[in-house]
Amino acid sequence: MRERRTPPPGPRFAAPAAPSAGAPDARPRRNTDEMRVYGLNACLAVFQRRPDDVRKVYLVEARLAALKAVLAWCVQQRIGYRVVAAEDLDKLTQSQHHEGVCFEVRRRPFLSLSTLLRRLPPPKPALLVWLDGVGNPHNFGAVLRSAANFGVHGLIIARDSALGLSGAALRVAEGGAEAVPIAQTAPGEDVFGALRNAELRVAATVPRAGESLYAARLPDRIVFVLGAEGGGLPQALIDRADLHLTIPGTGVVESLNVAASAALLFGEWYRQQGAQSERKKGPR
Amino acid sequence: MRERRTPPPGPRFAAPAAPSAGAPDARPRRNTDEMRVYGLNACLAVFQRRPDDVRKVYLVEARLAALKAVLAWCVQQRIGYRVVAAEDLDKLTQSQHHEGVCFEVRRRPFLSLSTLLRRLPPPKPALLVWLDGVGNPHNFGAVLRSAANFGVHGLIIARDSALGLSGAALRVAEGGAEAVPIAQTAPGEDVFGALRNAELRVAATVPRAGESLYAARLPDRIVFVLGAEGGGLPQALIDRADLHLTIPGTGVVESLNVAASAALLFGEWYRQQGAQSERKKGPR
Repeated sequence: MRERRTPPPGPRFAAPAAPSAGAPDARPRRNTDEMRVYGLNACLAVFQRRPDDVRKVYLVEARLAALKAVLAWCVQQRIGYRVVAAEDLDKLTQSQHHEGVCFEVRRRPFLSLSTLLRRLPPPKPALLVWLDGVGNPHNFGAVLRSAANFGVHGLIIARDSALGLSGAALRVAEGGAEAVPIAQTAPGEDVFGALRNAELRVAATVPRAGESLYAARLPDRIVFVLGAEGGGLPQALIDRADLHLTIPGTGVVESLNVAASAALLFGEWYRQQGAQSERKKGPR
Repeated sequence: MRERRTPPPGPRFAAPAAPSAGAPDARPRRNTDEMRVYGLNACLAVFQRRPDDVRKVYLVEARLAALKAVLAWCVQQRIGYRVVAAEDLDKLTQSQHHEGVCFEVRRRPFLSLSTLLRRLPPPKPALLVWLDGVGNPHNFGAVLRSAANFGVHGLIIARDSALGLSGAALRVAEGGAEAVPIAQTAPGEDVFGALRNAELRVAATVPRAGESLYAARLPDRIVFVLGAEGGGLPQALIDRADLHLTIPGTGVVESLNVAASAALLFGEWYRQQGAQSERKKGPR
C-alpha cells in the first residue's frame, strides 16, 4: 500500500539549483494541479513518499538542519529552494502555523472508489472511513492523522464535498494525509453497492439509539460513516447502513467532535482485531 | 456532582430589562472576573448549570427562538440582553464562530486540587485527566467535550499553565466545560502525593514503549496525564507515574493529536468499566 517511488533519474524542472534572493510570490496559485503544503511533518511526509512531486521549497533559516536531506535533493534535482523570513511564509501559506516551511507540490489526485476498493488487501480485514459532509479542514486533517495511526485503508468523500485537501488539513494531519488513500465518489455512483461488492459492511454512527460501540462486534471489513459537524448523517444513508453504532456516554454533551468520534471508532476496531488475533493464538 | 443551582429570588443586576438599541461595547473586558462565552451549546450550558452567572446576553435575531427561555429569564431577573448584528458579535467575540450568541458571564473559578479530590465519588471508580502544558484552546476545548461525554470526574492543570478557559475553548467544548470540574495546582504542590492519597493511579501517556492501551488493565481510579502538543511529557513526570501507556498504531504518524488521545483513553477506561460491570453480573 505504501509504495515509495524511486526518484527520477535526472532533473525535470527548470528551477534554479541554489537559493535565490527576494521574497516569494504570495499570489494564489492559478495552477490547480499544484498546492502549498506547510508544517514540518506534513512537508517531510510529502518528501518521503513522493519526492518527485515537490516543485519548490521555502523555509526559514532555523529549518535548514531539519530539512537538510530535502535541500540536498533539491540541489540534485535542480528544484528551487529559498530561505525566507517567517513573514513571507505567513503570506505564502495564509497561516501562522507553517512551522517555518512550505513546499509547493503536485496535488495528489483522488482515487476513484473502484480503484480504492480494488487495492484493498484481499480478503480481509479492511478498515475504511466515509466522511459525509465534513467541511472543516481541521477536522478533516485530524481524522487523517488518526486514520494514518490506525492503518485505515482508505477514506471516501463525495464528489461534491466541500472537502479539499487544503494546506490546513495537511498540516493538521501531521503527515498522515500521505499515508491514507483517498477516494472521491462520482455523481450518482452506487456507493453502497460498490462497498457491498467488496464485502465491506457499512457502519453508520448515530448520536443516539444505535448499538453501543463497546458492545458491538465490529466486522472484519468495515466502513465507518461519519456525518457533518452539526447536522449528522442524512436519514437515507442511515437507513441503508448495515450497522448503527453509538458512542456511549453521559449524554451531557450532544455528541463528540467528528475527529474524536473517528479516533474512537478506528481505535475500537483496531483493539478488536488485536484481541481476535490473540484469541487465534489459543489460550495462554 | 452536577448540581443545578436554584435561580435567585429577585433581580441582582441593574441591567435594563428590555433589549436596548445600539452596538455593544467591543472593548476588551477589564473585569477579569467576567468573560465572554459564545457558541450556542456553550451558552446554553452556562444558562442551564449556573444561570445566575449570566451578566449580559447578545444575540442575532435568528437566535431568538433558540434562546427563548434565556430571554425570559433575562426579563425576569432584569439582566440586559441585546439583539445585535452578526458583525457586532464578530467584534465582541473576536471570532466568526459565535453561532449568533454571546454571553457575558461570571468566570467559573478553578478549584484547588484538594477540593477536587475531596469531591470525588468515594471510594471508586474515578476518572481524571491531568493536562501538562497543553496550550492550544481548541485542543483544551476538545478534551473537555470528550471528558464531559465520558463522565470525567475532574481535569487538572498547572497553576502556571498557559491554559485559561477562553471563549474559544468553551465554544469547542460545546457545553462540556460546564460539566467537568477543573482544578489548578498550586506552585510547588505535591500533586503526585495528593493523587496517591486519594488512591488514584497516575497513567502517563508516552508515544513509544509504554504498555499498549489495549493490553493494559486500567485501574478503577486513574489519572491520565497528557503532555504538550509537540514536546510531550517531561521525563521527571513520566518517571514518577505508576503506569506508562502507549496508544498503539502503525507508527506512520509520530503521535496522535492530544484531543484524539484523550478521547481514546477516556473511551477505553469507560469500555473496561462497562465490561467489568457486565462480568460482575455473572455469565449470561
